[in-house]
Amino acid sequence: MNIGIVGLGLIGGSLGLKLQHLNHKVFGVTNSISNKQIASKRKLANFISCDLNILEKCSLVILALPIKDLVNPSPELIAAIPDTAIVTDVGSIKTPIVNIWEKIHPLFIGSHPMAGTEKKGVKAGYLNLFDNAKWILTPTKNTSKKSIDLLSKLIIAMKCKICETTPNNHDRAVSVISHLPIFIGASLIKSASEGENQSLLNLSYELASTGFADTSRVGGGNPYLGLDLARNNQQNILEAIKMFKSHINEFEKLIIEQKWELLLEKLQHTKDTRNLFL
Amino acid sequence: MNIGIVGLGLIGGSLGLKLQHLNHKVFGVTNSISNKQIASKRKLANFISCDLNILEKCSLVILALPIKDLVNPSPELIAAIPDTAIVTDVGSIKTPIVNIWEKIHPLFIGSHPMAGTEKKGVKAGYLNLFDNAKWILTPTKNTSKKSIDLLSKLIIAMKCKICETTPNNHDRAVSVISHLPIFIGASLIKSASEGENQSLLNLSYELASTGFADTSRVGGGNPYLGLDLARNNQQNILEAIKMFKSHINEFEKLIIEQKWELLLEKLQHTKDTRNLFL
Repeated sequence: MNIGIVGLGLIGGSLGLKLQHLNHKVFGVTNSISNKQIASKRKLANFISCDLNILEKCSLVILALPIKDLVNPSPELIAAIPDTAIVTDVGSIKTPIVNIWEKIHPLFIGSHPMAGTEKKGVKAGYLNLFDNAKWILTPTKNTSKKSIDLLSKLIIAMKCKICETTPNNHDRAVSVISHLPIFIGASLIKSASEGENQSLLNLSYELASTGFADTSRVGGGNPYLGLDLARNNQQNILEAIKMFKSHINEFEKLIIEQKWELLLEKLQHTKDTRNLFL
Repeated sequence: MNIGIVGLGLIGGSLGLKLQHLNHKVFGVTNSISNKQIASKRKLANFISCDLNILEKCSLVILALPIKDLVNPSPELIAAIPDTAIVTDVGSIKTPIVNIWEKIHPLFIGSHPMAGTEKKGVKAGYLNLFDNAKWILTPTKNTSKKSIDLLSKLIIAMKCKICETTPNNHDRAVSVISHLPIFIGASLIKSASEGENQSLLNLSYELASTGFADTSRVGGGNPYLGLDLARNNQQNILEAIKMFKSHINEFEKLIIEQKWELLLEKLQHTKDTRNLFL
């Protein structure tokens, strides 16, 4: 199948590598000549261009663009997508993107592969990013069966696990499990790096180990992604932060009041609960 | 050298494997017959016993016990350590342990290898746990040069990097970079698993991905460790939580007030700062 990928960053580039590996013909669009050169050298697609017209023979177009470009698509992009192509995106929020793109293209279906690293850009993609990943589809009453079927087949071929839900439920769930960790991680980094005692800060830099690295990882991710999520999933993220604060307040209270048995019980419970997620 | 290790859990067991690998003769003490059997099968030490008298010919004794047993050592343990042995511990707080053990044994030196997983117990240790780890030494004015020199040599032979500081500065630094992440991670797990909308919670369970797994990892660790840290590093941890809350409040405020440029700047800054830690 001829597949167009608009944007060859972490997600688009990894998809380009994977889909070529599955013998599809991949047409990749980059936003600059210099990115085109890097993408070509890395063979992220069979054909790579800055010209959106490269999409004209594609049966599927995957929009692997930053959220801000998905909620505010350029007229050139809209014009370049063939009427007969099935269209999806890989954005990590769904409601605003689906609302806009359902009006633009009758064969649009929102999707979101749950995979990532803290890297971004045309050098970030790699073949195995999606191995065993979950891939969310958010069809609505307007979505064509054809779009669901074709995209589902492709996702299964990539050995990902499909999970179907509504755009709204998607955005509420990821606000807690994906977006909240960004602001938690960033707050941890600030806690460890700000203060008046410079020798203590130097010691923290030296001692920081895997626990700090893991807890702060997504907090040190692409800042433009964090911004796009905050702008476009604002209410859900604020709700998640509020909930999180009530829980850390509870831990703080137990420690202040030295309620050690309750604290142990609570930590045991979170340990057991975490296993259910993984 | 004859080295005694009291406790063959994650840290003690890994040390036992590593020190045997470096051709030391390791004498391991377990707290039960069943643990002794597992430890023996896993060859965590050359000689393994529940009897503390196994330590009598050791030139170095490493106390790899839970913090609660280090700050409240049994009379049997104290009696079993040879007067001529150098003694260290591997506890993840230092001030209360150093204060107690300096009074018990003239050759004591506090130490803390910065390595771990969320596993615990006699099945958890493995040979390469300490590869490239930092290992903190917290000598005081009472610490003998002999203890510092011998332990330093051993740490370097294990290919770990020595970092020297005071017990107090150690405890303040780790309260932020190691202990705070436990309560952050646990609060994240609670945020994602509690609520009235069961279908949304089920979706969160299904969608949770590497971002959630990493940010919550230490929050799902050994609950007894979390308790011991809270009990024995209470003031520093409360200080760290307070600082963290002020930072997450700032992020929340920026999102509420839609100060997107400031938010981007802050996220860019935390991303850059995180790189300094790793």
